[in-house]
Amino acid sequence: MSLRYPNGKAYIPPKATGTSKKRNTNATSSYGNRGMSLEEDINISNEYYLANGLAVIHKKPTPLQVVKVDYPKRSAAIIKEAYFQQASTTDYNGVFQGKYIDFEAKETKNKSSFPLKNFHKHQIDHMRQVLSQNGVCFALLRFSISDEVYLLDAKHLCTYWSNQESGRKSIPKKEIEDLGFLVPLGFHPRVDYLRIVKDVYF
Amino acid sequence: MSLRYPNGKAYIPPKATGTSKKRNTNATSSYGNRGMSLEEDINISNEYYLANGLAVIHKKPTPLQVVKVDYPKRSAAIIKEAYFQQASTTDYNGVFQGKYIDFEAKETKNKSSFPLKNFHKHQIDHMRQVLSQNGVCFALLRFSISDEVYLLDAKHLCTYWSNQESGRKSIPKKEIEDLGFLVPLGFHPRVDYLRIVKDVYF
Repeated sequence: MSLRYPNGKAYIPPKATGTSKKRNTNATSSYGNRGMSLEEDINISNEYYLANGLAVIHKKPTPLQVVKVDYPKRSAAIIKEAYFQQASTTDYNGVFQGKYIDFEAKETKNKSSFPLKNFHKHQIDHMRQVLSQNGVCFALLRFSISDEVYLLDAKHLCTYWSNQESGRKSIPKKEIEDLGFLVPLGFHPRVDYLRIVKDVYF
Repeated sequence: MSLRYPNGKAYIPPKATGTSKKRNTNATSSYGNRGMSLEEDINISNEYYLANGLAVIHKKPTPLQVVKVDYPKRSAAIIKEAYFQQASTTDYNGVFQGKYIDFEAKETKNKSSFPLKNFHKHQIDHMRQVLSQNGVCFALLRFSISDEVYLLDAKHLCTYWSNQESGRKSIPKKEIEDLGFLVPLGFHPRVDYLRIVKDVYF
């Protein structure tokens, strides 16, 4: 059974956050999208950054409301009832050369525009708060068909979000290309967004 | 039934992270410790910082491994089996005037020393990583009997941690007073650690 959030999004079980999983990265793997989700690619990129002392950026755990817990003898506590909660922040944050880094990662199967419904009001509010504290804040937007990932500064995303009321519910890809930055995709790291961060924010 | 982690720590149900709870803070409340946990006091302080545009600092959700989820018709998904995971990072992070802020909060009933067993190796490793990225990183240590909270820079904590092998399993309070900073406790915010951060790290 695949797990789904109330909003219909597939639930991707979090990896044990304490351990940096060793991966079998054979030379036969090709560059770019090999069927991994953007989230998975970013997590592996963050492991690479961490292992190489380049940045400390983690995905936040999914917030859950725990209602009932059992304590069987001689074994770990089992949560028997809990509910998914909507996160009040973006998924990723951390530190890169002293600066606070904060971002959300989303993907679409659309070819020519990125639907704003991928974002929640809480996330946009959080981005505005981070911007007002001079944090580095952006979205990583993947067009999965063409396997392109763009870094779009949160100030642009927030503007598009605000302008939704005037009717446009998505960001045209052409404008993402103009306002954002194409993120190099590779092998190590897979989604090298720090390279863009270094160029744009430092 | 009170909930407990496998390590015996009481489980404090996370507040809905999306909503900033309004609290009844009557004038009859006195300053200082009114039986609230340090975590609760810090969460409320962070809400104050956020509401006043002073900083964006959140507690990370407790990481859980979700194993089984039910999808009853017409209602939210229910997690029926999940397990607590050990966090790989500290509990709190965020941004204050562009800088990355990262800390752990712990309390003890001891009077004259702070036991190092309050910290986990993962947390210390994370602190070292953050320090190497020039993040602002520290511990907030409460002596609950005297209701004093000290900010101790992570570099000191990591040194004490490393020296544990030579026998000393706790930090003498006298040394915390010398190396750390007494955090002002008040009403709004309750634990005004940002005031120390501003003095020490800016």
